[in-house]
Amino acid sequence: MLTLDKVYKASHLLKSVARYTDMIESNGLTDDCQLRLKAENLQLTGSFKLRGAFFKIANLPPDDREIVACSAGNHSQGVSLAAGKLHRKAVIFMPSIAPISKVEATKKLGAEVHLVDGVYDDAYLAAEKYCREHDSIFVHPFDDEDVIAGQGSIALEVLEQFPDVDTVLVPVGGGGLVSGVAFTLKQLKPDCKVYGVQAEGAPGMCKAFAEKQGVTLAKVSTFADGIAVKTPGTLTRELCCKYVDGIVTVSDDEIATAILTLMEKQKLVAEGAGAVGVAAVLAKKLDLTGKNVCAVVSGGNIDVNILSRVINRGLLSSGRVAELKIAMLDKPGQLREVSSIIADRGANVIQVRHDPGGEHADIIGCFLHIKMETRNFEQLKQIRQALAAAGYQLLN
Amino acid sequence: MLTLDKVYKASHLLKSVARYTDMIESNGLTDDCQLRLKAENLQLTGSFKLRGAFFKIANLPPDDREIVACSAGNHSQGVSLAAGKLHRKAVIFMPSIAPISKVEATKKLGAEVHLVDGVYDDAYLAAEKYCREHDSIFVHPFDDEDVIAGQGSIALEVLEQFPDVDTVLVPVGGGGLVSGVAFTLKQLKPDCKVYGVQAEGAPGMCKAFAEKQGVTLAKVSTFADGIAVKTPGTLTRELCCKYVDGIVTVSDDEIATAILTLMEKQKLVAEGAGAVGVAAVLAKKLDLTGKNVCAVVSGGNIDVNILSRVINRGLLSSGRVAELKIAMLDKPGQLREVSSIIADRGANVIQVRHDPGGEHADIIGCFLHIKMETRNFEQLKQIRQALAAAGYQLLN
Repeated sequence: MLTLDKVYKASHLLKSVARYTDMIESNGLTDDCQLRLKAENLQLTGSFKLRGAFFKIANLPPDDREIVACSAGNHSQGVSLAAGKLHRKAVIFMPSIAPISKVEATKKLGAEVHLVDGVYDDAYLAAEKYCREHDSIFVHPFDDEDVIAGQGSIALEVLEQFPDVDTVLVPVGGGGLVSGVAFTLKQLKPDCKVYGVQAEGAPGMCKAFAEKQGVTLAKVSTFADGIAVKTPGTLTRELCCKYVDGIVTVSDDEIATAILTLMEKQKLVAEGAGAVGVAAVLAKKLDLTGKNVCAVVSGGNIDVNILSRVINRGLLSSGRVAELKIAMLDKPGQLREVSSIIADRGANVIQVRHDPGGEHADIIGCFLHIKMETRNFEQLKQIRQALAAAGYQLLN
Repeated sequence: MLTLDKVYKASHLLKSVARYTDMIESNGLTDDCQLRLKAENLQLTGSFKLRGAFFKIANLPPDDREIVACSAGNHSQGVSLAAGKLHRKAVIFMPSIAPISKVEATKKLGAEVHLVDGVYDDAYLAAEKYCREHDSIFVHPFDDEDVIAGQGSIALEVLEQFPDVDTVLVPVGGGGLVSGVAFTLKQLKPDCKVYGVQAEGAPGMCKAFAEKQGVTLAKVSTFADGIAVKTPGTLTRELCCKYVDGIVTVSDDEIATAILTLMEKQKLVAEGAGAVGVAAVLAKKLDLTGKNVCAVVSGGNIDVNILSRVINRGLLSSGRVAELKIAMLDKPGQLREVSSIIADRGANVIQVRHDPGGEHADIIGCFLHIKMETRNFEQLKQIRQALAAAGYQLLN
């Protein structure tokens, strides 16, 4: 049975292994509430997963059986580092589609990595088979009491760092983190609210919580891969139903906005899963007026390719990059005039494409596609107006 | 005269105002040394500048004269927040080219912002004139004893958080930060080395340090705008010559690599100026073998447009995005075959451009420009080899 004792014991053991991560006051992210961020993205291995994995492995009988885990990302790194610290061999099964950076990071932590063709489920089957054949110990990423107790250690730090906290927002995938945090908080400060946050495209625990029964989603679709779980845990579902006050969802666009905001205002890199709590605040998914809110930023392991896309989308949606499609006559001097209009208003052209036009275009006309860096929508509006005033037709 | 007393007093006053920022162990950034990061990018206002500005303003006579500062970025935010905390009015002069995000941030902190057409020097002249006309108090960004003492408070925290430190790397622009840090460290731990790091394109203090005299650079050229200073301070130069062990420079490419590395491995957003210390470690500008090194990450206020460019360049230079230019016959089926070859090897096409070729191209030939997300150089090599084996000519 999960007890507060176990959480305290985990917290004690973790002192020499995990970072006591920073609690950071939010820098104008919201005016609704006093918001602080528990920066588990700054945890060793880039996510909270080390906590549960270490406590689990530390509690195993001291034999030389191998530790096996299956994950495309954070859990594999947590288990590898924990096993290494406890001088045990880790064998990690990862789907071959896992980002090379995570595979390399896991290897660097000393684990033996088996890449399995296919997706997570294929890697899971291979890990199970390996465990049977080698009498190894499988460390579940969330549905395990010791793992949950380890994640609960975060709640103890939250209470120390932010004694007035009355609301905690926790990312939810399989439910290990939120179970541990909610259980611990409700023991120590029963009136503190704990809300889970999931991605709209992977609302497994949200459904299970509402229906009070097990759920397996047919598919999951979100770029927040750390919480893209089809089947939430059984133990974690029971704990959520008992201790969590509610579960809300956020869209991928809301998550992307939160990631960009965390970079700009807080100088923190969060992965999709790590940013959902902040996304719920920014998108006002809960009434937090006047509350003392802690959002757990659970991890920062985001692939740079994805981060680049998040930034580019954020730049477009905030008016700092803009694309214009301009219809004009295909004659000398037009590009010069357009360039002048843009330059005079201080925007910076970063891409130009000349397009002779299609079937329905004037035979002496063409389209000019311009991509430029702008300051804001106001500057963009001025450029659009000036182009229109000079007789150019804007097609977007 | 600068005294250790003043640094301690600054540190004491700052306890209720500034964040005691985290000291973060580096996550495999280097095998040469034990490297830790003093995360002043997580300081309020996103940079260390708050420290010096607050101590300066706190020491002013308690009258109602306005506080004036001139800066395109960090100093303006530091002064605005400090003045606000001390219930004084701040008037900030910023060049009109300053990023809108920094102008907005400064206004939000309660300052009256005057935008001056032109560059920093124009804004400086306007600020000087305003001070004369209004009997206001100008807060210099670096060449001021109280400002330097305020920045020195970082060194006290470094010694508390990393008692074994023997080498500290500090970004250098005008020299306020490095003067304060070096002065303080040499008083308390004289054998601890302090090195300044500058951008290659703005090596003012580096020259002044070597030549032991004042220097004004004809121009500065670096994207690290926080340290793009033409004329280092006089007081700061004297302190550097006395207390700093050496000053090295890093290129913009080295800075960009450091920014990307800090994002990927440490989950921290650093601005160019903030990343130069880490850049010096990664580019092995100093022999740090076996040392206990603290790099001060001085700030994180980087424009997202610039960050996006840094990431894109980093992706290209690490083989995670690649561009191919393929010569082929302009006939049906070619694009399908090329697409298949790429897809079969797991890369993701993100841009395709068909180019009929120029003056010297075959009239029945064309060029295909493909941009794709790749995992690493190895995968890219496999794709190139497969395309070549299928008879395609690669032109880049």
